[in-house]
Amino acid sequence: MAKISALSGFPEWLPAQRRVEQHVIDVFRHVAELHGFAGIETRAVEPMSQLLRKGEIDKEVYVLRRLHAEEGEDTDPDRTLGLHFDLTVPLARYVLEHQNDLSFPFRRYQIQKVWRGERPQDGRFREFYQADLDIIGQDSLPGHVEAEVAVVMAEILARLPLPGFTIHVNNRRLSEGFFRSIGIQDHEAVLRALDKLPKIGREAVHALLVQDAGVSDQQADACLGFAAISSADGSFAQAVRDLGGSGELMEQGIAELTAVLERVQAAVPGAIVADLSIARGLDYYTGTVFETFVEGHASLGSVCSGGRYDRLAADNRHTYPGVGLSIGLSRLVSRLISADLARATRPVPSAVLVSVTSEETRGSSEAVARALRARGVPTEVAPSAAKLGKQIRVADRRGIPFVWFPAEEGGEHAVRDLRSGEQVPADPASWTPPEEDLTARVVPTA
Amino acid sequence: MAKISALSGFPEWLPAQRRVEQHVIDVFRHVAELHGFAGIETRAVEPMSQLLRKGEIDKEVYVLRRLHAEEGEDTDPDRTLGLHFDLTVPLARYVLEHQNDLSFPFRRYQIQKVWRGERPQDGRFREFYQADLDIIGQDSLPGHVEAEVAVVMAEILARLPLPGFTIHVNNRRLSEGFFRSIGIQDHEAVLRALDKLPKIGREAVHALLVQDAGVSDQQADACLGFAAISSADGSFAQAVRDLGGSGELMEQGIAELTAVLERVQAAVPGAIVADLSIARGLDYYTGTVFETFVEGHASLGSVCSGGRYDRLAADNRHTYPGVGLSIGLSRLVSRLISADLARATRPVPSAVLVSVTSEETRGSSEAVARALRARGVPTEVAPSAAKLGKQIRVADRRGIPFVWFPAEEGGEHAVRDLRSGEQVPADPASWTPPEEDLTARVVPTA
Repeated sequence: MAKISALSGFPEWLPAQRRVEQHVIDVFRHVAELHGFAGIETRAVEPMSQLLRKGEIDKEVYVLRRLHAEEGEDTDPDRTLGLHFDLTVPLARYVLEHQNDLSFPFRRYQIQKVWRGERPQDGRFREFYQADLDIIGQDSLPGHVEAEVAVVMAEILARLPLPGFTIHVNNRRLSEGFFRSIGIQDHEAVLRALDKLPKIGREAVHALLVQDAGVSDQQADACLGFAAISSADGSFAQAVRDLGGSGELMEQGIAELTAVLERVQAAVPGAIVADLSIARGLDYYTGTVFETFVEGHASLGSVCSGGRYDRLAADNRHTYPGVGLSIGLSRLVSRLISADLARATRPVPSAVLVSVTSEETRGSSEAVARALRARGVPTEVAPSAAKLGKQIRVADRRGIPFVWFPAEEGGEHAVRDLRSGEQVPADPASWTPPEEDLTARVVPTA
Repeated sequence: MAKISALSGFPEWLPAQRRVEQHVIDVFRHVAELHGFAGIETRAVEPMSQLLRKGEIDKEVYVLRRLHAEEGEDTDPDRTLGLHFDLTVPLARYVLEHQNDLSFPFRRYQIQKVWRGERPQDGRFREFYQADLDIIGQDSLPGHVEAEVAVVMAEILARLPLPGFTIHVNNRRLSEGFFRSIGIQDHEAVLRALDKLPKIGREAVHALLVQDAGVSDQQADACLGFAAISSADGSFAQAVRDLGGSGELMEQGIAELTAVLERVQAAVPGAIVADLSIARGLDYYTGTVFETFVEGHASLGSVCSGGRYDRLAADNRHTYPGVGLSIGLSRLVSRLISADLARATRPVPSAVLVSVTSEETRGSSEAVARALRARGVPTEVAPSAAKLGKQIRVADRRGIPFVWFPAEEGGEHAVRDLRSGEQVPADPASWTPPEEDLTARVVPTA
């Protein structure tokens, strides 16, 4: 038999841990659907020619080969397939492929595994869940949807067992407008440098700004001053102007950022701050950009990021702008588990184990189980007619809170709460456990 | 830009179709949890040495290669990874790897995509969902669990929008006991031949039996007579004895099969028949075997199959017997959609579109949406403050049944049912849609 072992970078959960992951997925789905987002899934593979658009051959893609591949299947980049490394490339393709069958603005969420051939020694996952949510317009998309995805993000995170979180929001027009108005040409180089602030600190970024972005010492100071601005209300605007920023583009950015702040504060008070250090590495954002941090877990980095982009995809008829967010779900779940922030109340869904007096009367125990399940109570029947003490230990070991003792001739049914030891008469046609015991729930660890 | 096109063998659904798939997944999960099964997921990849155990190099496996693979990563079968082609090989590995952390009997369900490099011209999927449910014992597993998985199977299928279904059940001991008692040595060759009955018919199977299994004409007739036996109650037993079968092994098989029939009939009347033609191709079944057919869709083949096996996995300490079933979920969903057996009531979850009078009052519309969502009503706000007729058409196109008109100063809120045209005053703090309109449901097509 081949070696049995864990594979570095491919996380796998025990049942109680999987319950935590499933809970996060369920919350994401529930909130997304409350906001009218439809779920889709895309195939796990895309042609390599799609995955490596713009010739980004540095991408850590897993390439597929059929064990019994035909001649040429392996070398033609339109026929060679790779596993998707995010859900954005597939969404762009899905929207173009199905544009005639979708209604726009297209509101979709998507929760799927993605794969990246990262070096495992970096402690990164090679297989992980990503949970994305986007609103895609055809040719145009109103600005107010930028606040909308932030609200959904806040509502999802507020329902998760996290110690607290804050969405940090900035606006690309505001940044670009500010940098231009103080005489900087290469604003993208400035953004790339500022993006490194949390990792390398102010001094190193200052050096980068001068060397790579070609700005003066004074401009670099202004950029760092800009990135230090943060406020939960609209006061960031005056701070930017005080730093010497001005101009139409910057004022447009200020107006957009103020609107996002106000809308999100109205929906989920305290969830968001304007933070002008937020840059987002990717070039393709054009307006609002978000990052989200969990209180006391700065080392996690941003758990939920996104923003506005003007061109998800395009063909010779249409351009598709959008706004979206993405949660690195496996990373978040992994932290919930490793830092013991949340736990399943038990590893199995069962609320009740029905005991079995003898194999001859197993049918009566099964009838009790059927009656309980008919009212939505997860129930299993003892695997063997062992001594009652042993059956109770089976329930205990599985974390099942109640053991049912079927009526013996003329007698009454009874149910015992294993935690309190209390045993009461009960009718299988009407008894239900307390709501909080109905199934395995995921709760913050006290 | 690279070519945008569907990939043969990689099904992908539009939002309303995905809703059907999600519904089937939800039903499977709900029923499995009612019966105390815990959900797990395994990584999508296994070492090639695991996937090709017993040297089955004919398996249509997708092999993975990192675009930036290191020397040797590609050639060592313990380091080379492939995508799993079923959920049984990963389960065997998971049980061995985590045996110290699981409690046995281990009741797990698992719903994941699997990949097979099948020839697409056969109309087979290369990527599809499989939904599995197994009970795994450590060293031993009582026989009554064989009926238990059939009950779960029946309850899942009964809740799906199918025209009707029947579980066909047989028992390997019964078959083997019968074949031996009429003097046949190679009972596995007989089972392989009988497995082909639905495809090639009685005459061709008769020829196969004589040529490949080396049985006499008379024995072949008896085998075909045996395979023709079918009954919804225990009467199959006498029919087998009448054909000349006898012996301890056969009688054990009869007793087991009778017990499964009775237990399943007690739980889900009419769901199961004994059908002695059921052979199941795989060698590893050792007791009860199941196949399931949908009324009027014989061409689908078995939509849900499984059975008892004595050795899922083993190491030098333990052997793991089990019983399980597997639904070819994508195939089933594909048929539900292509034969128009079921439909989503609408493609989006939203029950309500809140109209927007002007961009200045969008905040009021958002407040209405928040109030509705707080009571679990999926709601979206109109994307633009267009003329009301246009906003209503947006709702109509998306299949949203209700449009909300926020109160204008001093006035009342109103909600219109777009299907009846009826418009009534409504309070955002208390109005709820009828239960059946709350979200997109999946219903049988009338």
